[in-house]
Amino acid sequence: MQKRTMLYEGKAKRLYETDDKDLYIVSYKDDATAFNGKKRGSILGKGAINNKVTNHMMQLLEGEGIPTHFVTQLSETDTLVKAVTIIPLEVIVRNIAAGSLSSRLGLEEGVHLATPVLEFCYKRDDLDDPMVNMYHIKALSLATDEQVQQITSYALRINEVLCSYLRDLGITLVDFKLEFGMTSSGQLLLSDEISPDTCRFWDTKTNKKLDKDRFRRDLGDVEAAYQELLSRLMGDA
Amino acid sequence: MQKRTMLYEGKAKRLYETDDKDLYIVSYKDDATAFNGKKRGSILGKGAINNKVTNHMMQLLEGEGIPTHFVTQLSETDTLVKAVTIIPLEVIVRNIAAGSLSSRLGLEEGVHLATPVLEFCYKRDDLDDPMVNMYHIKALSLATDEQVQQITSYALRINEVLCSYLRDLGITLVDFKLEFGMTSSGQLLLSDEISPDTCRFWDTKTNKKLDKDRFRRDLGDVEAAYQELLSRLMGDA
Ligand SMILES: Nc1ncnc2c1ncn2[C@@H]1O[C@H](COP(=O)(O)OP(=O)(O)O)[C@@H](O)[C@H]1O
Ligand SMILES: Nc1ncnc2c1ncn2[C@@H]1O[C@H](COP(=O)(O)OP(=O)(O)O)[C@@H](O)[C@H]1O
Ligand SMILES: [Mg+2]
Ligand SMILES: [Mg+2]
Repeated sequence: MQKRTMLYEGKAKRLYETDDKDLYIVSYKDDATAFNGKKRGSILGKGAINNKVTNHMMQLLEGEGIPTHFVTQLSETDTLVKAVTIIPLEVIVRNIAAGSLSSRLGLEEGVHLATPVLEFCYKRDDLDDPMVNMYHIKALSLATDEQVQQITSYALRINEVLCSYLRDLGITLVDFKLEFGMTSSGQLLLSDEISPDTCRFWDTKTNKKLDKDRFRRDLGDVEAAYQELLSRLMGDA
Repeated sequence: MQKRTMLYEGKAKRLYETDDKDLYIVSYKDDATAFNGKKRGSILGKGAINNKVTNHMMQLLEGEGIPTHFVTQLSETDTLVKAVTIIPLEVIVRNIAAGSLSSRLGLEEGVHLATPVLEFCYKRDDLDDPMVNMYHIKALSLATDEQVQQITSYALRINEVLCSYLRDLGITLVDFKLEFGMTSSGQLLLSDEISPDTCRFWDTKTNKKLDKDRFRRDLGDVEAAYQELLSRLMGDA
């Protein structure tokens, strides 16, 4: 399967058409951005790591009954996926307060939430991805009630699966962001990526951050942390 | 009924104990603030107008089956109300895009929303009253599911009652903010105020703003607009 026209170049990936209209190729980049593009840099080897981490997670989730866009890995940085129309919602699941939740609600980073917290943000870089509720989603026709219900149920199930999987590897899943899309035949699929760019992973023993917060907050050891996370998943740490 | 200890001085009102532990006196001030206290001023006669407008609205709503804290007006600026413990949520209902909704979601002011939009904000001045969803409300124990359900149903009903009442007076109800509280015996009551400080009222014909946006945005004619709104409600305009 070959890359044809580039459809979109995002902050972390490029998306290409293929000769099959129902399949795209995602190509992961080393480029790193934070604070909605205000901070820019690059993390050596990130593209290859995020590609592998995402595909590993997607396969794990498929095995647990979550339909995903994953088809097959093509190279270190490229993966064949099912083409979808992305629902313009960033779906965030949180187990522990961190990042924007901490600052918005005045919760110290590290506070365990009494119950997993689900948030929907309107995927609009120019508006800084504002949080929305069911009424906004309906008023702006961002998704149908049925899609929101299905996404909610998948997101909470994904949280359970990933938390318990990562717990055994000594990793605490603090929070993560998902995107979902619809295929041309109307199937809702988990899409995009699940990687240290889109999740907060903390070493359970030391609380050491193994994710993009090392880049966002200039904590150093960025490449090593991404590599460490991959190694733990692959069982060669 | 006499004012005893002042319990709280807020941005727009003072709250006093009385000799009856289940009753408070609310005293409306002319002080005006905007942008969470960053802009300060005063609107001559506002206290008396907001007192009358609020009491008028509360009585209208009581007649439509919404339980409110209103007991009786004591003077131009003072009203006897049932004492409640305020639920720390600002309950916002929107019919037309304006203010923070416009800027957050990129909707031009004046766009009619396909369906009324309800928002809950965590009442915390130090955090700028951040928007919250059901998961945040649960995780932070801000209200019970039952309270949220009852508040939602009251808020949407209040919107219907006020919209139709104001429509006949040539006023468009753009959006408004409510607060609810619990009495010591466990009754949920609409509390606080419903006034040009807490609602957006537009003249239906001209779209002239008859509310605090005149102060927030330095549009002039602030006192006259508050007076105009009161006169329309009292039927002497
Ligand atoms: N299976 C898919 N089909 C179509 N688009 C997808 C699929 N998976 C991810 N995408 C989209 O491709 C883009 C990926 O690039 P990325 O660099 O993450 O973009 P962004 O800067 O918008 O986050 C995103 O817009 C994402 O929503
Ligand atoms: N019936 C009531 N019982 C107890 N508190 C009330 C009642 N009605 C309103 N309040 C509270 O009294 C205060 C009113 O003062 P205000 O100037 O509006 O305060 P703020 O600056 O916090 O908005 C608010 O905190 C409001 O929640
Ligand atoms: Mg992305
Ligand atoms: Mg107030």
